[in-house]
Amino acid sequence: MEHIRERFSSAPAGEVWAGDDAAVLRPPAGPLLLTVDTLVEGVHFDLRFDTAAQVGTKSLAVSVSDIAAMGGRPLHAVVSLGLPSARGDDERAGVLDGVESAAWRFACPVVGGDVTSAPVLTITVAVTGTVDGEPGPVLRSGARPGDTVLVTGPLGGAAAGLGVLRDGAAAGAGAGPGPVLAAHWDPTPRVAEGMAARRAGATAMLDLSDGLALDLRRLATASGVGVVVEEVPVADGATGEEALTGGDDYELVFAAPDLAAVAAAFATAGLRPPIVVGRCTDDPGERRLGDGPLPEGGWEHTW
Amino acid sequence: MEHIRERFSSAPAGEVWAGDDAAVLRPPAGPLLLTVDTLVEGVHFDLRFDTAAQVGTKSLAVSVSDIAAMGGRPLHAVVSLGLPSARGDDERAGVLDGVESAAWRFACPVVGGDVTSAPVLTITVAVTGTVDGEPGPVLRSGARPGDTVLVTGPLGGAAAGLGVLRDGAAAGAGAGPGPVLAAHWDPTPRVAEGMAARRAGATAMLDLSDGLALDLRRLATASGVGVVVEEVPVADGATGEEALTGGDDYELVFAAPDLAAVAAAFATAGLRPPIVVGRCTDDPGERRLGDGPLPEGGWEHTW
Repeated sequence: MEHIRERFSSAPAGEVWAGDDAAVLRPPAGPLLLTVDTLVEGVHFDLRFDTAAQVGTKSLAVSVSDIAAMGGRPLHAVVSLGLPSARGDDERAGVLDGVESAAWRFACPVVGGDVTSAPVLTITVAVTGTVDGEPGPVLRSGARPGDTVLVTGPLGGAAAGLGVLRDGAAAGAGAGPGPVLAAHWDPTPRVAEGMAARRAGATAMLDLSDGLALDLRRLATASGVGVVVEEVPVADGATGEEALTGGDDYELVFAAPDLAAVAAAFATAGLRPPIVVGRCTDDPGERRLGDGPLPEGGWEHTW
Repeated sequence: MEHIRERFSSAPAGEVWAGDDAAVLRPPAGPLLLTVDTLVEGVHFDLRFDTAAQVGTKSLAVSVSDIAAMGGRPLHAVVSLGLPSARGDDERAGVLDGVESAAWRFACPVVGGDVTSAPVLTITVAVTGTVDGEPGPVLRSGARPGDTVLVTGPLGGAAAGLGVLRDGAAAGAGAGPGPVLAAHWDPTPRVAEGMAARRAGATAMLDLSDGLALDLRRLATASGVGVVVEEVPVADGATGEEALTGGDDYELVFAAPDLAAVAAAFATAGLRPPIVVGRCTDDPGERRLGDGPLPEGGWEHTW
């Protein structure tokens, strides 16, 4: 608790952040979004490949990404950190350094939390958010036949980066982090993109944590539509397989009826244009990739 | 995620609970309270002594208790559950049974969460809350010299219950749970009591998770006052030592200037009267128990 308070107690007037039993915050005018995610050492990350600070940053990114997937913006985070007692102060400081820098970058201040013992490094981040103005939050269940399916960027980079680390290539060569390593180490929640998609009339959206094939199945199932994938944008250095079933990219996938409105909203916001990957169909059982079936597999978070 | 959605997806109109990237909730009219706590197997509990359901219930109780300590009422919870993969379905179902029944009892619906692998059972619960009307949330820092210090019930029961379990007495005798076992297994967050204390003008409050001696030191330090403890109410079956330094009671301790107002507020709410334990003094370094020093020690959450 003291370690959280030291860093995260400077609240604006009328609010109380870390240091009391609960944070006291101004409520949003719009809907309150709430999500929680946990990263567990040995399941979601490996400290041979990632620094404690990178893991701290990613833990906040993952939860903020859930807010982005609703078309919202993050408000506040609380962090619960489990640390092996044998590893001590440096690791705790590293994680909290990463969380703190992410809080600034993602405009999501940490307002409380706790630190406890745990057998492996475990970081849980709950994030609140809101949606400003109309339309409201974008669920995964609103896609309609005929909607276009888009993603906010090329895919597979994070999985390719993890592959490089597992093969030891990066460590051996001592090279600077290439794009795929950056995608693995430092995913960026697509908050501005999610807001642009919402304003452009997106009917369904989620963030790609488990691979396009699996997450798009989820969107189609929740919406009761079919889906046909025509082209998958592959990140530089990644394979087509990684782009389709690799995890942890944290790009957004969304369905929208009006492509011109989408292009205009992204351009107005100064964002890279989203990429069309396919379309929704009126056969709720259809899951197609080109002429074949969409793969069943998804990303497994285990080492 | 599916396991959370199955149980906790029935939102009222206009809200979305488990099943999307984030829950969508109506914001409170008053301040938004936010807290998070984690229970880790081997640190905070031992499955030789507690069932998975009891641990699930306690995980929600602990976070709701933080809201109670602000004089607030809980609104919603999100739960992140880490499970050893070898232990499987029964343990997960047990924890979620406990969480679900606690959600009903404490009027704090679970609106989302996730389930992941972890080396030991790990439960993190983030809870939102609010405060209705004036005065606002009660911090730990507002106590003034001359305030009376009260607790909402006799203390030490949870520590005594844990002692019974560790000694094997209960298991050996096969006896029904006595009051101290109930205090250990099933702590009740004092939400109504915290609201009554707030309405009666409480100046500082926290919940007793680490023992009266330590938590009262925190209150005094945050408030910049001294504190003199005159009498510690001991739960039936507990020792004076357990009442002073035992953990996990989750009664509230608070400071208030007007004892008559406190008595009236608790009586109006139909609550057991709180118990005077001491008073705040104008010497910020004073930490006294009767004629001697208040013990330094507190509850250590380790097995």
